[in-house]
Amino acid sequence: MYKAPVSDMTFALEALQHVAPQLMETMPDQEMRDVILNEAAKLAGDVLAPLNHQADKAGGAQHFEDGSVKTPEGFAAAYQQLSDGGWTSMEGSETYGGQALSLALSSCVNEMWQASNMAFSLCHLLTQGLISALQHSASEAQKNLFLPPMIEGRWTGTMNLTEPQAGTDLAAIKTKAVKQGDHYLISGQKIYITYGEHDMAENIIHLVLARTPDAPAGHKGISVFIVPKFLVNEDGSLGEQNDVTCVSIEKKLGIKGSPTAVLQYGDKGGAIGYLVGEENQGLAIMFGMMNHARFNVGLQGLAMCDRALQQAISYAVTRVQGTPLGTDAGSPIIHHPDVTRLIGQMKAESEAMRALMLYGAALLDKAEEGDAAIQQRADFMIPIIKGWLTEQSLIMTSHNVQIHGGMGFIEETGAAQHYRDARILPIYEGTTAIQSNDLVFRKTLRDDGAEITSLLAEIRADIAHISADNAILADLATELEVACQATEGAVAFLLSQQNQPRIAAAAGVPYLMMLGTLTGGWMLLRQGTYAVSALAKPDADTAFLENKLASLSLFTALSLPQVAAFAKTISKAGTAIHHLSLDQLTA
Amino acid sequence: MYKAPVSDMTFALEALQHVAPQLMETMPDQEMRDVILNEAAKLAGDVLAPLNHQADKAGGAQHFEDGSVKTPEGFAAAYQQLSDGGWTSMEGSETYGGQALSLALSSCVNEMWQASNMAFSLCHLLTQGLISALQHSASEAQKNLFLPPMIEGRWTGTMNLTEPQAGTDLAAIKTKAVKQGDHYLISGQKIYITYGEHDMAENIIHLVLARTPDAPAGHKGISVFIVPKFLVNEDGSLGEQNDVTCVSIEKKLGIKGSPTAVLQYGDKGGAIGYLVGEENQGLAIMFGMMNHARFNVGLQGLAMCDRALQQAISYAVTRVQGTPLGTDAGSPIIHHPDVTRLIGQMKAESEAMRALMLYGAALLDKAEEGDAAIQQRADFMIPIIKGWLTEQSLIMTSHNVQIHGGMGFIEETGAAQHYRDARILPIYEGTTAIQSNDLVFRKTLRDDGAEITSLLAEIRADIAHISADNAILADLATELEVACQATEGAVAFLLSQQNQPRIAAAAGVPYLMMLGTLTGGWMLLRQGTYAVSALAKPDADTAFLENKLASLSLFTALSLPQVAAFAKTISKAGTAIHHLSLDQLTA
Repeated sequence: MYKAPVSDMTFALEALQHVAPQLMETMPDQEMRDVILNEAAKLAGDVLAPLNHQADKAGGAQHFEDGSVKTPEGFAAAYQQLSDGGWTSMEGSETYGGQALSLALSSCVNEMWQASNMAFSLCHLLTQGLISALQHSASEAQKNLFLPPMIEGRWTGTMNLTEPQAGTDLAAIKTKAVKQGDHYLISGQKIYITYGEHDMAENIIHLVLARTPDAPAGHKGISVFIVPKFLVNEDGSLGEQNDVTCVSIEKKLGIKGSPTAVLQYGDKGGAIGYLVGEENQGLAIMFGMMNHARFNVGLQGLAMCDRALQQAISYAVTRVQGTPLGTDAGSPIIHHPDVTRLIGQMKAESEAMRALMLYGAALLDKAEEGDAAIQQRADFMIPIIKGWLTEQSLIMTSHNVQIHGGMGFIEETGAAQHYRDARILPIYEGTTAIQSNDLVFRKTLRDDGAEITSLLAEIRADIAHISADNAILADLATELEVACQATEGAVAFLLSQQNQPRIAAAAGVPYLMMLGTLTGGWMLLRQGTYAVSALAKPDADTAFLENKLASLSLFTALSLPQVAAFAKTISKAGTAIHHLSLDQLTA
Repeated sequence: MYKAPVSDMTFALEALQHVAPQLMETMPDQEMRDVILNEAAKLAGDVLAPLNHQADKAGGAQHFEDGSVKTPEGFAAAYQQLSDGGWTSMEGSETYGGQALSLALSSCVNEMWQASNMAFSLCHLLTQGLISALQHSASEAQKNLFLPPMIEGRWTGTMNLTEPQAGTDLAAIKTKAVKQGDHYLISGQKIYITYGEHDMAENIIHLVLARTPDAPAGHKGISVFIVPKFLVNEDGSLGEQNDVTCVSIEKKLGIKGSPTAVLQYGDKGGAIGYLVGEENQGLAIMFGMMNHARFNVGLQGLAMCDRALQQAISYAVTRVQGTPLGTDAGSPIIHHPDVTRLIGQMKAESEAMRALMLYGAALLDKAEEGDAAIQQRADFMIPIIKGWLTEQSLIMTSHNVQIHGGMGFIEETGAAQHYRDARILPIYEGTTAIQSNDLVFRKTLRDDGAEITSLLAEIRADIAHISADNAILADLATELEVACQATEGAVAFLLSQQNQPRIAAAAGVPYLMMLGTLTGGWMLLRQGTYAVSALAKPDADTAFLENKLASLSLFTALSLPQVAAFAKTISKAGTAIHHLSLDQLTA
């Protein structure tokens, strides 16, 4: 069961509008927002969520025969409903039939899709990535031919980056593209292609990274191609099958409902592909959409947390086991202080994550207008949103298993599925280490700490406005200031290591996690400020708003103390790994 | 592949002998120790480890038909080898054919079994628990009849505690036992019975908690019974099948090689059972073996960490992906600073865990002699060893998945299996919350902090002996003193909450994790002291010993800073959960 947290989303959007109205100018009006959220909530709860666990139990999309994948029961019909309801066109440009919703709003809808059924909703997520890439970089003819059917939901899209020897390191890509007239012939093998083959749509458009024969070595010699599964005639009708075959489907730890394909290109001479942009501009084109792609994976981390939280609550309010301290016999386990602590932490973290996600979305929306300062802040926040939200999803889905006790270890419950599903999130679309490298080197050291310094100043300006009237808010402000000081020290240390990149890199993930915790706390401080002002209104939903303040208290107690610990780790990690002899370890 | 860490175990045993010789008096001599460790290492590496992943891949022990379980290929033959080699008799009393090895040594062997194949080795672990319970509490006739075949390895044993409504709360047990002449008739359902049914031995002896008709309600009315699968004649030969049936096998997240049975007793009138001890003494008898049982699960946590560490190293030294900073092209990923950090942390944590495990084993060995102070320290350490080692195993097996990148998410690699397998450890044999309740209420508040105060004094005495000569050791000592201060503050806070049990309980798991980290660091300090003295010897293995010191540095940087964070959480968690309205949450 999944109930989209519409009130929480609305609260988070309004809080953000309250504190940063300049970022939220592209939001539709309140009435439109409510219609969209409520309609999406129905589809997510009634259609997508019920398919999630049964797809996993049935072995997922691993029914593979003769190059064809049979997706789990109900998936194809659900994709049709997504299309019929206009949801596949939510993000696309209006020029090609899309609705071009602001990211802050479409992200709430995407949170619902991902929380209700992540394996299913990956198809939409990937297709949107492809649409976005083509909108930015394809020729007008390519856009006109390929975009409308994808936006309409008749075709889907994939990203073909990884090869067995080229995962994190795309420079090692070997797939070949040989020019032949107005197209290229593509040959090679791509792995980990999500929805690389399936039966939910009429056609699949692959976006493939490959190398032309005379391309420079490494990063600079990669081009990107559109390679349709079925060739497309000029009138948009489908022609014959292209020279691309699904040769196998991976047996995965999680997201089993989604087929992860190994695709073989060019076994019959070469798959027909169409160059996007110019030759050797492939990585630049892919990097242009990286912020959105990474943002979306961070959003999946949030989605998994909220789903796990909902499941934890619904189990803990019905399961009776022992008498919780200070309650009457027969009270459910949610009243055991440790269960309350775990659920409270999941609630507080989810809310911090959602606020941070929406802040990122609003920054990306605003950055579209060409504001360099906003773009810089967005660039800074993206690795944090991707890294921190996904790492937290491992802990929060684990809490849900723990609350279930022995039942959590039995697959029937479904708690284990969320735990398994989430495990891919800190890996794909750039591991947490990759995010942290980006954050340390390109986003912190390159500008000599200018952006992080401005961020800290902004946090402190918010802290300075907190009055002592509300004890919870004041306590968070106090601890946030402690965290700012620790962060300042850690940043100073990193800046002192400009010439010691290995030391800076060893501190990278702790730095990312520190900033996730710090900015998560900052977002809750802002939400708390808004909650206090909302409480003063005559028709306030007092219980709801006071529980928003409770999240601040929980985050202050359970999460924020880690900032100082991370700061200490940052200053010591590089020296520590230097002491370790890898030779002895592997002797 | 698994290579038992014999050198690491030997180092850890010798370090403990060096700093606490009085605890290690029951250790066999060095020659015998080496023979045992090396022979066990062969069996673990050559026989048990190769069966581990293939059993999981083949769906584990989930081949269930007509009440019978077919264990994975090779398991029955491997159990025979365990028996033939005398390993099933390692722990048992000499009176019944056992070898009565000291726990400090047998635990090293058990670490090898659990690391090489946890699903398989659970059978041995459970059987040892049963042997230990019967040795302590059964009649002489019962011991003579049931112990020798189990010690010999012809029969195995199970623990039957849990029922659907009685997991953590054993007071809710409903299974009935009605006296009939010299035995009882048992009826009811037991769930989560590890190796409750299998094909690896001639007979299975179930130890079953049940309630006689006129027993008092709750904890005080539970008795414990021996219920053999096949009845046993007076001469030890097997009679007819008892009235107990395996009705299903659970589909689990991990340890799939081990059958987890639902057992139905008494469908044909009642299974014949024999009372152990007196009526209504069941929980007292089970609690008498609880320290050992919980210790063994902590040991499994360590075993999973070491297995994950070995796999992470072997992958990271072969996989090439990008050029690690400051190295030449073609260097494997282990040289990436973040991969080094993860592997370094796994190494340091595993060594801290192993040292803590052996310290616990030595305490339990020595406590057998009736030393009250040692018994009190053992009682204090057991929930920490169970809770901290198992919680850490989740993080360390997750690190291994992360190091594998996308490959870690594919089941073929085996990294995902360790991640799944470990997830049961913080749940069974008392969840981490249960361990923390024990630690807070029975072990800390009940004696007004006497034991934790004496422990802190002992740690500080060790810190006081550290000279500034070795920088790594001195840095750990400095940070350990900071951690002691934070711990002192947290303990003072808990003691101030004697009348606020909900506040104390909410702080329980952070308190347990804090003490795990603190005492883990203490153990490494002791090992460091020993390593420094060993380095001064002419034939010292310098590279090995210096890498032991590197573990100190890694732990100081990556783990110890958390102590202060936990301390702050302890002081704030209770108030924070008090702010949360569960009613609003579930409205």
